[in-house]
Amino acid sequence: MTGDASRGRFITLEGGEGAGKSTQLRRLAGVLEGRGLPVTVTREPGGSPGAEEIRALLVSGETGRWGPVTEALLHTAARRDHLERTVWPALQAGGWVLCDRFFDSTMAYQGYGLGLGRDLVAGLQRVALGDFRPDLTLILDLPVETGLDRAAARRGGEDRYERMDTSFHHRLRDGFLDIARREPDRCVVIDASRSLDEVHAAILDAVDARLRG
Amino acid sequence: MTGDASRGRFITLEGGEGAGKSTQLRRLAGVLEGRGLPVTVTREPGGSPGAEEIRALLVSGETGRWGPVTEALLHTAARRDHLERTVWPALQAGGWVLCDRFFDSTMAYQGYGLGLGRDLVAGLQRVALGDFRPDLTLILDLPVETGLDRAAARRGGEDRYERMDTSFHHRLRDGFLDIARREPDRCVVIDASRSLDEVHAAILDAVDARLRG
Repeated sequence: MTGDASRGRFITLEGGEGAGKSTQLRRLAGVLEGRGLPVTVTREPGGSPGAEEIRALLVSGETGRWGPVTEALLHTAARRDHLERTVWPALQAGGWVLCDRFFDSTMAYQGYGLGLGRDLVAGLQRVALGDFRPDLTLILDLPVETGLDRAAARRGGEDRYERMDTSFHHRLRDGFLDIARREPDRCVVIDASRSLDEVHAAILDAVDARLRG
Repeated sequence: MTGDASRGRFITLEGGEGAGKSTQLRRLAGVLEGRGLPVTVTREPGGSPGAEEIRALLVSGETGRWGPVTEALLHTAARRDHLERTVWPALQAGGWVLCDRFFDSTMAYQGYGLGLGRDLVAGLQRVALGDFRPDLTLILDLPVETGLDRAAARRGGEDRYERMDTSFHHRLRDGFLDIARREPDRCVVIDASRSLDEVHAAILDAVDARLRG
């Protein structure tokens, strides 16, 4: 779909636990809507009726319920459904789609964090996406301990990854930063250890710098 | 796992609708158990608690609920869980595992029947299986019309594929036969248009010829 001038824009927010993705996504959506843009806010895993059913399999139950390969395959299945049913139709209608997590999370969590490696995860992404890529990926980065403290403060039922050991979360952070280094045209790293207002301003700067016009 | 002399044997039964796979699998299991072999009978999609949950997503609902790529990914996720939780442990314990459908069904249905092509499906199988392959695959072959008539006679709730048009079922049959031609060391085509007893005898001959000793 890349290269179609009439289509909307696809922005993904990525980062580890407690980075503030959901909050920042809502604030960004508010600004873009205020500019009169048609905005769709969505999330992964999930974002379409079928993908939400797959999400229910993924986020409930004990850690280790699924092996890492199975988990990566389920995320990829949910992603394909989400793209076909929600993301691609919205983009083709000229909308701006903001997505809380996308394939970089599979690469970071399963590829780097759980040790499946880049090649296996990249192969799955080619199956699900073909040549499609986000127009802009914002990676909210903060120290592992800060993120885990924040996540613990708002803990809900879906905390399987938060319970992983600290070394997992360090691999995760390093993974996201490595992804950003490999694809600087698509990715912007945002220092998310600052205040909500400062992070919001940095996100807006990145969106305007990369996608304006 | 291939090459480990102490492990059991993995036999898959494949074929289109109405070929009699389940019936023949039970009869083969009975004979092998009568010889004192430890036999596990299983099926795909499903065969482990997690994979059965994925199966429920796959077999219910309307045709076209999932796109072909999503469907192939869900089958592959279920397969990986089935292998990790059921098939590999049973083989490592020296058991004979008989499986009603396996990856050739994904290749035939999604690769040939729904047009995803061999490369995409083969790539997914490498993710789920690595180098693991069945020791023997029995492809129950019969004319499309005969199979659909038989399937209609015993129709239950899981008939999404039976409702596809006839050309789909011809691509499916040709797909299974092409798979057998490409991998003659693993696959044996069984003429399933004959009586149950004749098909059973042919299956037993193939098992004894290929896996004896």
